[in-house]
Amino acid sequence: MDPIRVRLTLEYDGTDFVGFQYQGAGRRSVQEELERALERVTGSPVRVHGAGRTDAGVHATGQVAHCDLRWRLAPETARTALNARLPRDIAVVRVQEAEPGFHCRFDATGRTYRYTLWNRDRRSALLSRYTWHVPEPLDLEAMRAAAGELVGTHDFAAFGRPAEPGRSTVRRLRRIDIRAWRGTVLVTVEGNAFLRQMVRSLVGTLVHAGRGKIATERVRTIRESADRGQCPPIAPPWGLCLVRVDYDGQRPILDS
Amino acid sequence: MDPIRVRLTLEYDGTDFVGFQYQGAGRRSVQEELERALERVTGSPVRVHGAGRTDAGVHATGQVAHCDLRWRLAPETARTALNARLPRDIAVVRVQEAEPGFHCRFDATGRTYRYTLWNRDRRSALLSRYTWHVPEPLDLEAMRAAAGELVGTHDFAAFGRPAEPGRSTVRRLRRIDIRAWRGTVLVTVEGNAFLRQMVRSLVGTLVHAGRGKIATERVRTIRESADRGQCPPIAPPWGLCLVRVDYDGQRPILDS
Repeated sequence: MDPIRVRLTLEYDGTDFVGFQYQGAGRRSVQEELERALERVTGSPVRVHGAGRTDAGVHATGQVAHCDLRWRLAPETARTALNARLPRDIAVVRVQEAEPGFHCRFDATGRTYRYTLWNRDRRSALLSRYTWHVPEPLDLEAMRAAAGELVGTHDFAAFGRPAEPGRSTVRRLRRIDIRAWRGTVLVTVEGNAFLRQMVRSLVGTLVHAGRGKIATERVRTIRESADRGQCPPIAPPWGLCLVRVDYDGQRPILDS
Repeated sequence: MDPIRVRLTLEYDGTDFVGFQYQGAGRRSVQEELERALERVTGSPVRVHGAGRTDAGVHATGQVAHCDLRWRLAPETARTALNARLPRDIAVVRVQEAEPGFHCRFDATGRTYRYTLWNRDRRSALLSRYTWHVPEPLDLEAMRAAAGELVGTHDFAAFGRPAEPGRSTVRRLRRIDIRAWRGTVLVTVEGNAFLRQMVRSLVGTLVHAGRGKIATERVRTIRESADRGQCPPIAPPWGLCLVRVDYDGQRPILDS
C-alpha cells in the first residue's frame, strides 16, 4: 500500500513546550509528542513536518503539519484516535488527506498570528498563560499609526532574524489589525512568512508606540535602519498564538 | 492604631490548588498563599477568611475574602503591592475597606458560579484547564427543562453534603441560565448558598439530561428522593468558576 500524505491542523498550549520543533532529547517539543502519538496509532515510526516553528511558550490554534502514513482511516476516526493518545495540551483539530506533493511549510502562502495583551492595571490570574500584561494605558490610534509604517513589503531585518544566516529578510506583511475587547487588546498580524521573533518584535514595537515611548516616524526609521539593535523590547512568547496557515490553490481531497 | 477590616476580591486558577481553604502543610491552598503575601506586605501574620471553600481545581474570578490589617494604604496601592507578591495563578481584583463587623461568609446573600462545557466532538488544548469536554450533542432545551425542576427553594440532599453533618440541606436556587457560545455551553448558577459539590452535581445532572440519559420528570424524582446515591455522575472541578459573591445592604466604604 502506497503511503498517503496527511495534513494535520493542530491546537496546543505552548507553555510547557520548547516549541513545535524537536530540539534534542529531554526537551519537550510538539513534534515529538505528535510523532509518538502517530507511532502508537499506526505501529510505525512517522516523521512530521510543521508549517512554522513557533518559539518556546507560543501557542497555536491553527498550526499545520504533514506526514506520510501507510494507513487508511476516515479522517474523523484518525483524529479521535490521535486525540485519545496525545497529551492534554495538544489536540488535533482536523485531519485531511492531502495531494501527494503537499508540503505544509513550502506551500504555505500566508500565516496569521494573534497576539493578546491584557491591558488593565491589575494582573489576571486566569489569563496569565495566554496574555502579556501591559498595565499602562495604550493609545490604540498611535498603535494603528505605527502599524501603518510596518504593513507592506519591506526588509524586516530590524524585527527578526532569518532561519539561516545570509537569507533574505524581506517579507510581505499584509495586515495588522488592532482592537480592544473586554480588557484585552487583540493584535492580528498576517503575512506571507515571518522572520524568527518577528511577530513578537512587531508587537513590542506597537506597544512601545501605544505607550507613547516612540513616535510613528521613529517606527519607520527603525524599520528602514534594518538594524536589529534599534528594535524596542520584544513581547514575551505567552501572548502569541499561531491561528491560521493559508494554502492558495492547495485543495485537500478530504475534510473532517 | 485600630485594625481595619479589609475585603478582598480574588481571581485564581484553581488547577494547582487543593482549594481556597488551608488543608495542612505541603498542600497548596489559596488562603495560605494570600496570608503569606499579606504578611510580606504588612510585616505581621494575617488570618484570612473566604466566602466559599471552592474545591481542588475550581477557579474563581470573584471570590471574596476578608482580614484585619493594622496598616493603612490606599486600596489601589495595597492591591498593587499584593499582586507583586502573589504567585502568577492568584490575583487581587479589588481591595476595599469594609465595615468593622463585615464577614465575607456569614454576610454573603448570594453566590454565582459559572460552569463551562466544551461541546465539540474534539478536545480543545487551550481550553482544557477551564472546561469540561462533553463530545456528545447536548439538547439545550432538555437541559433548560431539567433546570426548571431544580430552581427554587428545595432540599438539595441528593446533590450535595452540608459542610457539617446534620446541618440543613435546604437551599434557595435562584437561577440557572444555559447558553451556547462558540463551541462552549455556559451554565450560570445563582443561589443563596450551596452544599458541598452541589454546583458540580447539578451540572452533571443537567448534562445527563442534555444527552438524553434522563427525562425531565426523573430530575424531579432525584431531587425529591433527597438521596445522594440517586444523583448522576458529578461534573469535574476544572469547568467550574466562582464568579460573584453578593452582599445586600453591606456597602464598603472605599472602592478601587
